[in-house]
Amino acid sequence: MVRAAVLGAGSWGTAFAKVLADAGTEVTMWARRPEVAAAISGEHANPFYLDGIELPATLTATSDPVEALAGAGLVVLAVPSQSLRANLVGWAESIEPDATLLSLAKGIESGTLMRMSEVVREVAGVSEDRVAVLSGPNLAREIAIGQPSATVIACADHERAVEVQKSCATGYFRPYTNVDVIGCEIGGACKNVIALACGMASGLGFGENTNASIITRGLAEMIRLGVALGANPATLAGLAGVGDLVATCSSPLSRNRTFGARLGQGGTLASAQAATNGQVAEGVKSCTSVRALAQRHGVEMPLTDAVHRVCHEGLSVPEAVGLLLGRRIKPE
Amino acid sequence: MVRAAVLGAGSWGTAFAKVLADAGTEVTMWARRPEVAAAISGEHANPFYLDGIELPATLTATSDPVEALAGAGLVVLAVPSQSLRANLVGWAESIEPDATLLSLAKGIESGTLMRMSEVVREVAGVSEDRVAVLSGPNLAREIAIGQPSATVIACADHERAVEVQKSCATGYFRPYTNVDVIGCEIGGACKNVIALACGMASGLGFGENTNASIITRGLAEMIRLGVALGANPATLAGLAGVGDLVATCSSPLSRNRTFGARLGQGGTLASAQAATNGQVAEGVKSCTSVRALAQRHGVEMPLTDAVHRVCHEGLSVPEAVGLLLGRRIKPE
Repeated sequence: MVRAAVLGAGSWGTAFAKVLADAGTEVTMWARRPEVAAAISGEHANPFYLDGIELPATLTATSDPVEALAGAGLVVLAVPSQSLRANLVGWAESIEPDATLLSLAKGIESGTLMRMSEVVREVAGVSEDRVAVLSGPNLAREIAIGQPSATVIACADHERAVEVQKSCATGYFRPYTNVDVIGCEIGGACKNVIALACGMASGLGFGENTNASIITRGLAEMIRLGVALGANPATLAGLAGVGDLVATCSSPLSRNRTFGARLGQGGTLASAQAATNGQVAEGVKSCTSVRALAQRHGVEMPLTDAVHRVCHEGLSVPEAVGLLLGRRIKPE
Repeated sequence: MVRAAVLGAGSWGTAFAKVLADAGTEVTMWARRPEVAAAISGEHANPFYLDGIELPATLTATSDPVEALAGAGLVVLAVPSQSLRANLVGWAESIEPDATLLSLAKGIESGTLMRMSEVVREVAGVSEDRVAVLSGPNLAREIAIGQPSATVIACADHERAVEVQKSCATGYFRPYTNVDVIGCEIGGACKNVIALACGMASGLGFGENTNASIITRGLAEMIRLGVALGANPATLAGLAGVGDLVATCSSPLSRNRTFGARLGQGGTLASAQAATNGQVAEGVKSCTSVRALAQRHGVEMPLTDAVHRVCHEGLSVPEAVGLLLGRRIKPE
C-alpha cells in the first residue's frame, strides 16, 4: 500500500487526510504552523480548521515538509491555489522520484493564467502522467462526518488514477476516475465565480429559479471555456462540473455564495471583506483570471464578466442583473 | 399578434398565462371548475392554485373549452401529464387548423410510455412541427411574482419555436429556443424522480454533497436515457435538464422533494400521502414509467430503479442508499 503525504492542513486537506486514513492508507500531514501539527498528532483533532471532528489515531502531522515527504508515493497538494507555486518550489527536491502528485487546489494562477496541474508540472519538473487532480462536490465538513459523497480523480495516466482511487475509496467516499484533467480543473476554477453570482442574486431577494438559471448558464460558459482548452464536455456535466457547482452554489456554508450575498444586499467589496474576517472569497480573485483566460481563447463568458465588473470595476449588482437579462433572446 | 388559449388553471398554467399576458399576448384560460374561471375573470386572481398573486386585468377565463380555443393560434396544454390524453380527446376538434400546441405537462404516460408530445400528436392528429414543449427551472410562484427566470421552448420547427418565444418573452422571463423536443421532455420526466431521491437523502440527514452527488448521478442517467431516445445531451446540460433539476431538487417548496424526505424519515407511502392532503408526488408515478422506458431501451438507471423499489416494492430508504453506495467504483 502506498504511503501518502498531505501538504496543507486547512479544512479540506484535513478532511481528505482523514478519508485516506479511513481507506487504510498511511498518511503524514504537513502543517505550516507547529501547533496545528501538534494538535493533529497529539489530540487527533484540528481545532484550527476542522473543529469538532475526531481524526483517526493513525493520522500524524509534522511542520517539516521533508519529514512528511520521505517515502511518500502519493503527494497531496492541499494549499490555496495562489500559494501553490511558492510552496512547491520549496518542496520539489524532497518529492520521491516516481511519486504521484495529486492537486486539491482549485483556481487559475493570477498572471500566468496556468491551471494548477500546469503549475505542478512546471515547478516540480514532472511529466503529465504523474500529476492528478481531485474535484467534486466535496464540502469538507460533510465528508469529515462521513456523509456519502462522490468525487473525480483525473490523471492522463489512467492506471495512476486507479491507484489514487484505491488509496481513498471508503464506504462514504466514492472516487470515480477520469483522464480529463483539464475538464476537472476548469470546473473547479469556474465554480466559485458562479457561486458569487448566485449569492448576489440571493442578496437581491431572488429565489430558486434564478439560482438554477445562473447555475445552468454558468455551466454553459464553463463548458465553452473547457472545450476551448481541450476538455471533454461530459466531465463538466459530471461530478467535477455540475456536482461541485451545485454543492457550492447551494450550501449556506459556501464562503463565495455568502460573500456574493453581501454584495447583493448592497455591501461593498470592503464591507463584505470586513464581514468575513478580512478574507476575500476565492471567486473575487479567480473571476479576473478566468475572464482573462476566456478572452485569450475567444470564449464569451457573460456571467464571469459581470462578476468581474462588480468586484473590480464598480458595477452595481442590480446593473449586472439588468445587463444579463437584457441580452438578446436566442437559441439556447 | 397570436391569440393564446391556456388550458388548465393550476399554479403553473396560471403563472404562464400571466407571463403571456405580460408579454402582450391576448390570453383566454380554461378552468375545469367554473368558480376558478370566475375568480380569474372577475377578481383577477386564482385563490385556489396561486393565492395572493394579482393577475393582469386583460386575462380572462372560461370553463368552456370551445370558447377558450376559438381563434387561438397558440394552445397551451397545462393539465397533469396522466390526464392530458383524456382532456385532449375532448378538445381536439375545437383546435384551430394551424394552431401551435405547446405542452407544459411533464411526465411519461403510464402504460403507453409515450412522451407528452407523442400523446399530443396522436390524440390531436397533428404533425410534429406543430407541437412544442416548454421546460426549465420554473417554480410557478417565483415566476408569478416576476423573479428572473429562463426556460426552453422546443419544437422540431424552429420558426414556430421563435413565434412561441416572442409570445412569452418579458423582462423577467427569458425563453430560449431549441429543436430538441425529446431532450426537453426527458429532462422534465426524470427530474421529479431524482427530486424524490434527494428528498430521501435529506430525510436521512444527509447534506449538500450528497444532494449534489445525487443530482449529478441522476443527470448522468437522464442523459443516458435521452441519448438512447435521440436527444442531444447538450439539451440536458441546459435549462430543461440541469436547470429544472437543480430548481426542483433545491426548493423546499418542491412536492417531490418533500415527499421523499418523509420517506427518508421513515414514513410509509401511505403516511407521506396522508401528510400531503392525499396527493401522491408526481415522481412516485413517473419512476415506474421512466424505469420501464429505460428497460425497453437497455439503459441502466440505478437511481430511478432504487426510487421505484422504495416506492413500490417495499425497499427501505437506508437499504436503497446502501445499494447505490455499494456499486463498484469505476470510471465516471
